Amino acid sequence: MAINLNIPARNDVFPVPGTRIGITEAGVRKANHRDLTVFLLDEGTSVAGVFTRNRFRAAPVQICEAHLAGNSGIRALVINTGNANAGTGVPGLQAARQTCEALAKQLHLESGQILPFSTGVILEPLPVNRIIAALPAAVADTRPDHWFEAAHSIMTTDTQPKIHSRKIELGGQTVTLTGISKGAGMIHPNMATMLGFLGTDAGLTTALLRPMVKRIADRSFNRITVDGDTSTNDSFIIMATGASGVLIESAADPRFAALEQALTDAARDLAQKIVRDAEGSTKFMTIQVEQAATTEEALKVAYSIAHSPLVKTAFFASDPNLGRILCAIGYSGVEDLDVSRITLWLGDVRVASHGGRDPGYQEADGQRVMAAAEILVRVALGRGDVTDTVYTCDLSHEYVSINADYRS
Amino acid sequence: MAINLNIPARNDVFPVPGTRIGITEAGVRKANHRDLTVFLLDEGTSVAGVFTRNRFRAAPVQICEAHLAGNSGIRALVINTGNANAGTGVPGLQAARQTCEALAKQLHLESGQILPFSTGVILEPLPVNRIIAALPAAVADTRPDHWFEAAHSIMTTDTQPKIHSRKIELGGQTVTLTGISKGAGMIHPNMATMLGFLGTDAGLTTALLRPMVKRIADRSFNRITVDGDTSTNDSFIIMATGASGVLIESAADPRFAALEQALTDAARDLAQKIVRDAEGSTKFMTIQVEQAATTEEALKVAYSIAHSPLVKTAFFASDPNLGRILCAIGYSGVEDLDVSRITLWLGDVRVASHGGRDPGYQEADGQRVMAAAEILVRVALGRGDVTDTVYTCDLSHEYVSINADYRS
Repeated sequence: MAINLNIPARNDVFPVPGTRIGITEAGVRKANHRDLTVFLLDEGTSVAGVFTRNRFRAAPVQICEAHLAGNSGIRALVINTGNANAGTGVPGLQAARQTCEALAKQLHLESGQILPFSTGVILEPLPVNRIIAALPAAVADTRPDHWFEAAHSIMTTDTQPKIHSRKIELGGQTVTLTGISKGAGMIHPNMATMLGFLGTDAGLTTALLRPMVKRIADRSFNRITVDGDTSTNDSFIIMATGASGVLIESAADPRFAALEQALTDAARDLAQKIVRDAEGSTKFMTIQVEQAATTEEALKVAYSIAHSPLVKTAFFASDPNLGRILCAIGYSGVEDLDVSRITLWLGDVRVASHGGRDPGYQEADGQRVMAAAEILVRVALGRGDVTDTVYTCDLSHEYVSINADYRS
Repeated sequence: MAINLNIPARNDVFPVPGTRIGITEAGVRKANHRDLTVFLLDEGTSVAGVFTRNRFRAAPVQICEAHLAGNSGIRALVINTGNANAGTGVPGLQAARQTCEALAKQLHLESGQILPFSTGVILEPLPVNRIIAALPAAVADTRPDHWFEAAHSIMTTDTQPKIHSRKIELGGQTVTLTGISKGAGMIHPNMATMLGFLGTDAGLTTALLRPMVKRIADRSFNRITVDGDTSTNDSFIIMATGASGVLIESAADPRFAALEQALTDAARDLAQKIVRDAEGSTKFMTIQVEQAATTEEALKVAYSIAHSPLVKTAFFASDPNLGRILCAIGYSGVEDLDVSRITLWLGDVRVASHGGRDPGYQEADGQRVMAAAEILVRVALGRGDVTDTVYTCDLSHEYVSINADYRS
């Protein structure tokens, strides 16, 4: 029961010139399941990514980071579901390298030009031979218009595919942005991982793209939380093929900021769709913290609210329980917080001011906001002018059921 | 359905010479409810406490801290349920002060010799007149052997009273330690708060007791977590009356360490009983982190495991889901953690070594440990020689029900 998760029609998912995608069945974990996806990228494509900060980084994450740090142009991605190749030690690294080597050989590339991604059960050996055996079929299947299919083939426990696609004008030229993501909790450790792949036919140097992907992640995939858990495999990749003829080589180029904004909007939509499809969620919550002194403290307060099981269950119950939100602000760890300066809104309703219940607040107004499927929580700290925003969902019976019953 | 929560028989709860307790009905929130408790302490009693670090500190917490910082000997405690006097601003502070003044007048003391405590609904004005009107009845009821009754009268959503009582030998003399606590989540914001009151007839200077109560809290009430939420009103108080004739005036006194150990054991039992009665819990978990470089990092890892909703639901399901525990260790925020050095045990079963599944691990063994109502999770980090321990419970359907349905 995803919350307002818009799935575009197949015809509204624009191919990204310079990319081709192929999908096949490798039988990683289940038979008759399209579990292997290959992206091929034209020469000259700039690729950059951000990865999980979990210290248990899966083997493919370690290989991705090494290959992205190298100077070979990335020319292909290979993604399997069914097995995360995480907690698999040295044999896991070897399996990820073997996959890259096999695909490189087939495509007449170097192994360092391939990025591997895995999602699925952890602590089990990757059936690398089955993946390698299926690579020719995946490559043979590659077509520019397979983004819609890829949004499905990378799914694990997702109930819905997550796709964002649009065309924008950039300095008088049209460029395409299409992306897909997967993930149904921040982590679902036996069917792990959030993945995001965002492509554009705008051109951008790798030197410009690398810091940009970090900034974009910090406004999208790094601003969502379902349960506070961070997977071993989380990865977000941007691919800029340049096939549109648009080439941005300087941050001073006026098209640079416009492209970053459009990519940020796309990434935020793909990230929010993960929350909208989160395990057992029934409400989508935007937690916006204003008037913070620093980004760090804005995020402390926002995540404190977003992670509180008591706040999350109150949202599940559509209960405007101010005490729980104020408490979560109070223990967020902002040391010198003056609670008498705090104002809190639910949607457009001011519910607390000067750290206590607002004199004009009527519970019926709070109730009205909480009854909706999408809820904005705004907190003003009265300490500065920094605003930051986190997206999350409620905590339901269904969440407990899914996560308690998963392996049985 | 509290987990192995031992309630002593009334006759096994020893009075603490030098203390008397009286209980009455003030009608704070409900009629016919014994909601007001008064402790009277003999002159010369040393009293010290630790309080919530939530920035939204309730009015009584603020008054307690001020009175304990003063030089007047504390001679009485007054505790009401039904209303937490939190988020109540200046009128709330006035109400707490009025309560102290009224009790001081009745007892011919100064207001600064009284400590007030409140637990119950927050963001609502304290009905201070009803409390003041009931004080004479509470004082008239005071008796040395009312600790058992007080364990009941301070309860809010607790399903069971929490009591610890024993006598120990201290340098050839017998002293009594009796304590009570309440709380059913780390916070239950409309019926808020964890409270702990521990009395002994051993004598100890206030100068020695103040740092001791902090050390004891750090090994007991500051090592439990139900849902990561911290209340506005949490308070833990130790009262040492000296009525036994034992008087410890120096930390070099050999009885000092023995008393601290006994008080720590008592406080840990009172704290653990809160977890054992936690909302919806079915399992009691001890998370012990060994071989840490510092206490801080041991606690980061322990709380990361203890707070993970995915770990907690796996325990609810009796599912030895290693991936969830390893992941929680990985994202605990210990920056340079080398996961290849980590060993993990469930009870006596080594389940992971070198950061992956242990070669000798059989899932049936993990299953056997997880099926029990009490589970020990041990993590060795391979970084140093610091050990620390946190106590928590699982996350059940019942937790969601209690917290989603509470106000409706």
